[in-house]
Amino acid sequence: MSALTPVFVSLKKAQEQLAPRNRAEKDAALRGAAAAIDQDRGAILAANGADVRRARAGGMKEALIDRLLLNNERIDSIIAGIEAVIRLEDPIGRVQAGWTTPGGLFIERITVPLGVAAIIYESRPNVTVDAASLAYKAGCAILLRGSSAARESNRALAASFQAGLQAGGGIAGAAALSGAGALEGPENHDDVEEILGARGYIDLVLPRGGRELIRRVVENARVPVIETGEGNCHIYVEESADMKAAAAIIENAKLQKPGACNAVETLLVRRPALAALMPGLAARLAGKVELRCDGAAKAAALGLKNRPGTGEAASPYTGLVIKDAVEEDWETEYLDRVLAVKTVDSLDEAVEHINRYGTGHSEAILTEDLAASREFRRRVDAACVYVNASTRFTDGGEFGFGAELGISTQKVHARGPLGLETLTTIKYHISGRGHIRD
Amino acid sequence: MSALTPVFVSLKKAQEQLAPRNRAEKDAALRGAAAAIDQDRGAILAANGADVRRARAGGMKEALIDRLLLNNERIDSIIAGIEAVIRLEDPIGRVQAGWTTPGGLFIERITVPLGVAAIIYESRPNVTVDAASLAYKAGCAILLRGSSAARESNRALAASFQAGLQAGGGIAGAAALSGAGALEGPENHDDVEEILGARGYIDLVLPRGGRELIRRVVENARVPVIETGEGNCHIYVEESADMKAAAAIIENAKLQKPGACNAVETLLVRRPALAALMPGLAARLAGKVELRCDGAAKAAALGLKNRPGTGEAASPYTGLVIKDAVEEDWETEYLDRVLAVKTVDSLDEAVEHINRYGTGHSEAILTEDLAASREFRRRVDAACVYVNASTRFTDGGEFGFGAELGISTQKVHARGPLGLETLTTIKYHISGRGHIRD
Repeated sequence: MSALTPVFVSLKKAQEQLAPRNRAEKDAALRGAAAAIDQDRGAILAANGADVRRARAGGMKEALIDRLLLNNERIDSIIAGIEAVIRLEDPIGRVQAGWTTPGGLFIERITVPLGVAAIIYESRPNVTVDAASLAYKAGCAILLRGSSAARESNRALAASFQAGLQAGGGIAGAAALSGAGALEGPENHDDVEEILGARGYIDLVLPRGGRELIRRVVENARVPVIETGEGNCHIYVEESADMKAAAAIIENAKLQKPGACNAVETLLVRRPALAALMPGLAARLAGKVELRCDGAAKAAALGLKNRPGTGEAASPYTGLVIKDAVEEDWETEYLDRVLAVKTVDSLDEAVEHINRYGTGHSEAILTEDLAASREFRRRVDAACVYVNASTRFTDGGEFGFGAELGISTQKVHARGPLGLETLTTIKYHISGRGHIRD
Repeated sequence: MSALTPVFVSLKKAQEQLAPRNRAEKDAALRGAAAAIDQDRGAILAANGADVRRARAGGMKEALIDRLLLNNERIDSIIAGIEAVIRLEDPIGRVQAGWTTPGGLFIERITVPLGVAAIIYESRPNVTVDAASLAYKAGCAILLRGSSAARESNRALAASFQAGLQAGGGIAGAAALSGAGALEGPENHDDVEEILGARGYIDLVLPRGGRELIRRVVENARVPVIETGEGNCHIYVEESADMKAAAAIIENAKLQKPGACNAVETLLVRRPALAALMPGLAARLAGKVELRCDGAAKAAALGLKNRPGTGEAASPYTGLVIKDAVEEDWETEYLDRVLAVKTVDSLDEAVEHINRYGTGHSEAILTEDLAASREFRRRVDAACVYVNASTRFTDGGEFGFGAELGISTQKVHARGPLGLETLTTIKYHISGRGHIRD
């Protein structure tokens, strides 16, 4: 028996109580939770302030501080997330299929709650509430294992959420912080090991964070895992693309939230598109994004019309930083204001690059060529494949799923933005009248 | 790089070639495979004869020999399995859902092949062809890792299947035996370790066999796993049941194939049903099944009308063997002509027993009480929940799925009989006209 066993047992019991609740009951509890968070703003912001001060004192990068930070607007958006989940249909009790066998057995396939989930996540405190709301609506209990950086914020949010469920007639114990929130950061991952080994208690673990977290979870888990969030995303531009729209899409995909997993990291430009795309793009990104280009792309960005070797000339755009790309650039998820640019000679080369270096997250083609768009969609192996749009749309909210549990980059169980359905499974009901098998 | 890497690479390439094939092309290849196996009967039966002789010489139990054995009728049924897969709709390229977001992005969710699967299985050589056919139809490549006991049979079947695919215009390399069939049994599992660690090559591993095999796979896998086949199944009988039908169902669930994972292992009898059920059941099973009963069930079986302590009296039925049940009996998947019998005082007690000792496979209630049937269905946590039918129907063929890859006892990705859909995943296609995210 591990130190967390009592928590596992209590989550399992809470889930059994929650499972038969109908939509009206579950929605009432979630309305209670939304009201409680609204009411507890002061305490939540104070707790978050303590986390942010501690993080700054510890030297956390501002991009990460921004992930951690809560303010009134962000609390509004957390509440809006709960409200979006309330509006979602109940995913439980749906008859997905039903048929009668030749022998007269009546079989129905029905959605039921998955059971007890665990989510292991970094920084962002809104995940605490998003995950707990989705789990509750799906009739699942959830163990929330946030990072030590967000400890106080998560405690305040979870306490408010649980009290709100209770006030709304719901089951407060269906959501629990691992170790009651006493998470001691990377130096103490004992509770993570316990979660990963909790066969019979935890039906699914969702790691949501960087490559290292996901690797550790996958290597050590003996319960099922959905890998999420690692996004080395590409945009491939052909010469038929609308170049003004292309530059706007690339800027959006890189800069609207550079730390997001669906931000673009490498731009692939078909050689004949270089001259039309790169100077305008370079002007647009100058002073905002560092480019890591191969020779042809660099020359084009500098307006040198594909004369490699002359790229050391002064940049025509104020603040434009261009470095020479190396192999490592193709492999890197920068999560920062850096964009790799590679020249390709064909759609084949683009697809091969993506399938080799991509993480199966979000990939885009910008083209007006129908055959190319079809080929790209078919051959690129990723959860979300875009034609003429920014990769930043890969998101449960943007997809209309309400909140999300993360973005799955694996192919099993769920792929892409993880909404309510991720937390369901099926059960077959088989009805006979004394049927025996011949 | 591991010794199997070239096999992984070649499966991945074959899968990429197979993925865009349409249904007509895939079905033609499968018809070629069916014809080849029909033609190669002689060689297949000879190879199987060698395996069976080797197994007998090694002292294998007859129940396991029966799993291994092929004959003309069983080859017919292997071919019928391929034909059933041919008749199935193509699971690939289905638009499961499609919608337009408020901002005008058009999103479609489309089924695509899962990729490369691996199946690790024991004894039964028919699994080789069932799994390969389903994988091919789903556009997946598959690595077949059978047991050393069936080595020659698997080699002959796989060679015939591959040649048949080729003859039918298909891609022979989409199915491969691990180590070209040179599987050296439990003493050499190096290839299994490689399969379990083949991240980036193997998208899903299906262990199909006993508890020990599944445990080893789950502990060591770093690729996704679906657990299959462990079936500690129960039948719960209430006093309102049709007792004649009940006895027939129990006999069928125990004896129609005692070595199957969907065979019943423990009978739970509500106390008021003992007198009406047990004497007739005992008479029916005498000489065929050994009973492991608690006191009340034993007394009832012997016609002693619930007078425990008097159970040592001679059995009234020739050949009836009754032993006293111990705790271990509730935990055991006998896979043999043994049935545990426990008296319960309520549906609650039955459900609790099942959720504690069951493996989430197949569970049945025999009753004419509507509320009890509803309650049992709702509360029993298993892939297949039966009312008034034998648990033996949990089977891809019986469910109408064509062949099957096993029976999933987990909740993630797929639950219950594993058909074609198990080998699919989804991809989101997102179409914009220069869409950027605000």
